Amino acid sequence: MSGFCFELLTTDVRARTGRLSTAHGVIETPSFMPVGTAAAVKAMTPEAVVETGAQVILANTYHLMLRPGAERVKRLGGLHSFMNWSGPILTDSGGFQVMSLAALRTVSEAGVTFRSHIDGALVELSPERSVEIQDTLGADIVMVFDECTPWPVEEVVAAKSMRLSMAWAERSRASFAERPGSGLFGIVQGSVYDDLRRESAETLVGLDFDGYAVGGLAVGEGQKTTFQVLDSCLPLLPEDRPRYLMGFGKPADLVGAVARGIDMFDCVLPTRSGRTGQAFTRRGAVNLRNARHAEDPRPLDSACSCPACRNYGRAYLHHLVRTGEILGSMLLTWHNLHYYQDLMAAMRDAIAESTFDAFAVDFTAEQAMSDIEPL
Amino acid sequence: MSGFCFELLTTDVRARTGRLSTAHGVIETPSFMPVGTAAAVKAMTPEAVVETGAQVILANTYHLMLRPGAERVKRLGGLHSFMNWSGPILTDSGGFQVMSLAALRTVSEAGVTFRSHIDGALVELSPERSVEIQDTLGADIVMVFDECTPWPVEEVVAAKSMRLSMAWAERSRASFAERPGSGLFGIVQGSVYDDLRRESAETLVGLDFDGYAVGGLAVGEGQKTTFQVLDSCLPLLPEDRPRYLMGFGKPADLVGAVARGIDMFDCVLPTRSGRTGQAFTRRGAVNLRNARHAEDPRPLDSACSCPACRNYGRAYLHHLVRTGEILGSMLLTWHNLHYYQDLMAAMRDAIAESTFDAFAVDFTAEQAMSDIEPL
Repeated sequence: MSGFCFELLTTDVRARTGRLSTAHGVIETPSFMPVGTAAAVKAMTPEAVVETGAQVILANTYHLMLRPGAERVKRLGGLHSFMNWSGPILTDSGGFQVMSLAALRTVSEAGVTFRSHIDGALVELSPERSVEIQDTLGADIVMVFDECTPWPVEEVVAAKSMRLSMAWAERSRASFAERPGSGLFGIVQGSVYDDLRRESAETLVGLDFDGYAVGGLAVGEGQKTTFQVLDSCLPLLPEDRPRYLMGFGKPADLVGAVARGIDMFDCVLPTRSGRTGQAFTRRGAVNLRNARHAEDPRPLDSACSCPACRNYGRAYLHHLVRTGEILGSMLLTWHNLHYYQDLMAAMRDAIAESTFDAFAVDFTAEQAMSDIEPL
Repeated sequence: MSGFCFELLTTDVRARTGRLSTAHGVIETPSFMPVGTAAAVKAMTPEAVVETGAQVILANTYHLMLRPGAERVKRLGGLHSFMNWSGPILTDSGGFQVMSLAALRTVSEAGVTFRSHIDGALVELSPERSVEIQDTLGADIVMVFDECTPWPVEEVVAAKSMRLSMAWAERSRASFAERPGSGLFGIVQGSVYDDLRRESAETLVGLDFDGYAVGGLAVGEGQKTTFQVLDSCLPLLPEDRPRYLMGFGKPADLVGAVARGIDMFDCVLPTRSGRTGQAFTRRGAVNLRNARHAEDPRPLDSACSCPACRNYGRAYLHHLVRTGEILGSMLLTWHNLHYYQDLMAAMRDAIAESTFDAFAVDFTAEQAMSDIEPL
């Protein structure tokens, strides 16, 4: 079992490649983490997730603490064994879901009390309990417990929320007992306010985390604002630690964030879209539900080597989406994750070759093309 | 492309093994055909279906004629290419679904007029049109168009229905132009009435079909009655043609029907049950939704080599079913189809070794055991 460590390999202007080593293996960065909310990446087997090129997945503390319960998962051998995923796992802290899913929550300095969205049971979550749950699950990357600041938000409210999150980050740090090969990430908050983001980043850096996430974005503020926040707060973070942009985003978002120095991403978009007939390709997003695909024998993307593109035409994928076949969700999810991983690998290559700028220009031009190639 | 032919290999009392050769490959009998209603076996990739051991699948004329349409499938290269299944495909004739799914149907000597359950469009189906659709799809095994007799039914109604089906069978036969390696099966009707079944079987044998199905069962009459019908009508069918029991059944049904001389089966049970948390095992049916599995680390069936049993414990499968994860449907469908195919292979082996009687006794004893093995 190796130690938890991040090695910065190459930089290209602000874009970076690196290697994050964990107890369950190495993550090449920039990296995209498929979301496995309830200990399963929706509509995918773990073998299929590996085949897409994914090296790490995300699981949700909030969902797993409610069902099946962290202690039960531990009795069953831990999360990796439970869900048959042998690679690294990052667990979020539950903060975001407490705000977005739970009813009747009460936030105090001590923590949060809420009613489960599953059975209405009263549950408490605190920085210490969140870290304990993530440790019990056996996470490789543990996230500090934070309050998710609403959007839009006035600066005075954002400041209060950020300072609560910073107090919780300190308590999370204090309660985290490193298992070999595991690490704890702090989360920069402060909404869209530069001064608050600076205060948050400086507080966290003073606490010395194994990695730093940028949180409280992807809540409706838009890509331009997100990029402005990254521009202002990433230079405040230490270069030798991984940087993780939480819950974000579309392919163009990933490229823009990597250009600004982000190393890690997670987002439900590729998996959720796969269940609603939406595919991401080199040539932009494609809605397979659209009638124009009904007689089209061409692959979704002729340059893609995923099973959906290799073995089927658009007409068949359209048919599966229209008839509500589970296989449609399976194939489009597989394709989307495969595309996201291909995109990350291409970005890593471009950075290593110091051609990221040219890559980004080509990417944008290709995304704007018609998704239908000539026969 | 080989010709369509059935070779009877071995018999053990009334049970039989054989080889049915088609344009798209060989089917070892007794054989179970997974159901791919809308050109997809629900929650399975074709690669996974092959891995279960399945050699042939069934697709539904009724569903495919309405969506995406047989002519469209043909323009897209035929059903095999469309759905990426290179093995044999049997298509039913649509008779059963017209009766069970369509609204406002009118049955006449000419055929059936009905409203589509999808868009309400008025559609006509006749023996000639059903055979034409199946030919257009590119089916390896084409079924005659028949009327599905309701249950329970008076003898006089069953007689009238059976005679209509026999007239339609003759017209189906006349309109079938054999493509190389394809064959046409007649369907014995007559409900539970021996005289009607005899009349039906003799009529069909006189028309000389490539195989004979027993239809109008699995509609609520129960296993005992089904077996009585098989006992009385299978001896009337030629030994050198395959015999197919339609839409039937549970594992014990398959064993009992093979004992009586059936060679082919289809049923939605393993796939549909896989989507509702029900698993079939050597030791009987298991409802994974049941709370007793919540902390059970043991595999669903330690003797099974499917991914659900090889890679996960019952507790995880229970968790997937309870949380409604698509992966639960995928894994349990895979397991169920794998179990059905293992069962068919074991029956073929037992027949080849003339030990089918002993096999059936062991099978029944094992099915009655607790599904939980000692740790």
